[in-house]
Amino acid sequence: MENNKSTLIVFSGDLDKAIASFIIGTGSAAMGNQVTMFFTFWGLNILRKEQYVPVQKSFMDKMFAKLLPRGPEKLGISKMNFGGLGAKMMKYTMKKKNITTLKELIETAQELDIKMVACTMSMDVLGIKKEELIDGLEYAGVASYLAEANEAKVNLFI
Amino acid sequence: MENNKSTLIVFSGDLDKAIASFIIGTGSAAMGNQVTMFFTFWGLNILRKEQYVPVQKSFMDKMFAKLLPRGPEKLGISKMNFGGLGAKMMKYTMKKKNITTLKELIETAQELDIKMVACTMSMDVLGIKKEELIDGLEYAGVASYLAEANEAKVNLFI
Amino acid sequence: MENNKSTLIVFSGDLDKAIASFIIGTGSAAMGNQVTMFFTFWGLNILRKEQYVPVQKSFMDKMFAKLLPRGPEKLGISKMNFGGLGAKMMKYTMKKKNITTLKELIETAQELDIKMVACTMSMDVLGIKKEELIDGLEYAGVASYLAEANEAKVNLFI
Repeated sequence: MENNKSTLIVFSGDLDKAIASFIIGTGSAAMGNQVTMFFTFWGLNILRKEQYVPVQKSFMDKMFAKLLPRGPEKLGISKMNFGGLGAKMMKYTMKKKNITTLKELIETAQELDIKMVACTMSMDVLGIKKEELIDGLEYAGVASYLAEANEAKVNLFI
Repeated sequence: MENNKSTLIVFSGDLDKAIASFIIGTGSAAMGNQVTMFFTFWGLNILRKEQYVPVQKSFMDKMFAKLLPRGPEKLGISKMNFGGLGAKMMKYTMKKKNITTLKELIETAQELDIKMVACTMSMDVLGIKKEELIDGLEYAGVASYLAEANEAKVNLFI
Repeated sequence: MENNKSTLIVFSGDLDKAIASFIIGTGSAAMGNQVTMFFTFWGLNILRKEQYVPVQKSFMDKMFAKLLPRGPEKLGISKMNFGGLGAKMMKYTMKKKNITTLKELIETAQELDIKMVACTMSMDVLGIKKEELIDGLEYAGVASYLAEANEAKVNLFI
């Protein structure tokens, strides 16, 4: 297979959709494709550091920061979450069946040189600062995504 | 960049996903691409006129009309909506940060000659009439979408 | 139109999104395209047999099996489900307006030789066995999907 480009917009911050995104992304990169994952809106939650990072925020931004989950361990699932129980069930069963966790998938994505981009407009809307996100990201807007999507073979919105 | 085609299926009627759709759509059109946005199911709510339009409806269609939001100002967000509070928070913070509103994005889309198509089958299912939707739309079914998607470089389902 | 390939990832198990998936899929196949539908996570619920199938399961897998809907008749809708009432309203109104049901759409998909693939990793996560799914499916992982997507003109994630 030749070296194709793929892009994924990760809009969702649900654990199940995040796992699907990274399985597709890392699978594609492992096949030799050049993969860009563009994290926007709730998808930014996947990239948040687990620990609290003290940064200057407006009242509204503080509210968002409180309400939004910090990183892979805190995400809920899109269906049957039952206040977090569903997410726990899914994580428990995936662990028991030796399926890679989201945290490991993110590490694999970085090892496979997947370009992980945080959407700067969404960061602005939700009041998320660079210091609050994991290392190794790029920062860009929709124009940068569109330029890549136009050259890619596979483009998905998740 | 050459003149590429892009298509977006806007299935969701959530404010956050609607904003994402129009940011991608208008961004792409601004780069010179030919963009078609195909509104289906709940996505039709984005195109509803704000004011009540008196049209003949069956009992069931009236129920749907009552339950479904009328236009951009009434949409909820896909996560943390809290009975509309989340949507208000998002609109408030976007306004304060000078980010274009959904209503403005729709106007921009029309100025940029984005082809906005309302899915006739979904209109039938939800009992929505042409008079209830904003002006400047085209009306078509899935075959019309598929013909365009087959020629497009970027196709997303939102 | 030449013979193009299309792929759909059906991640969602919501009735409305399932209907949208199959309308796109069957519409595309009817136009002469080669269509692959890849069912993953909650999308597997669409393919479950309606009747209970006795298979050996762990405690957790039994829990998932109990909580997850069995087949097209049991699916909820993504918005306004109101404990199943919304799904009933939608099915009632679609029937009255002579719109094809999901069950019929699945049959049409099989008649049109759409390749329906169940994601084996998701089956593992949710503890779903082949015997519990309808006949005529193929079983594969993400690599198989990616190989097809790279050759396809239209790729959607639903």
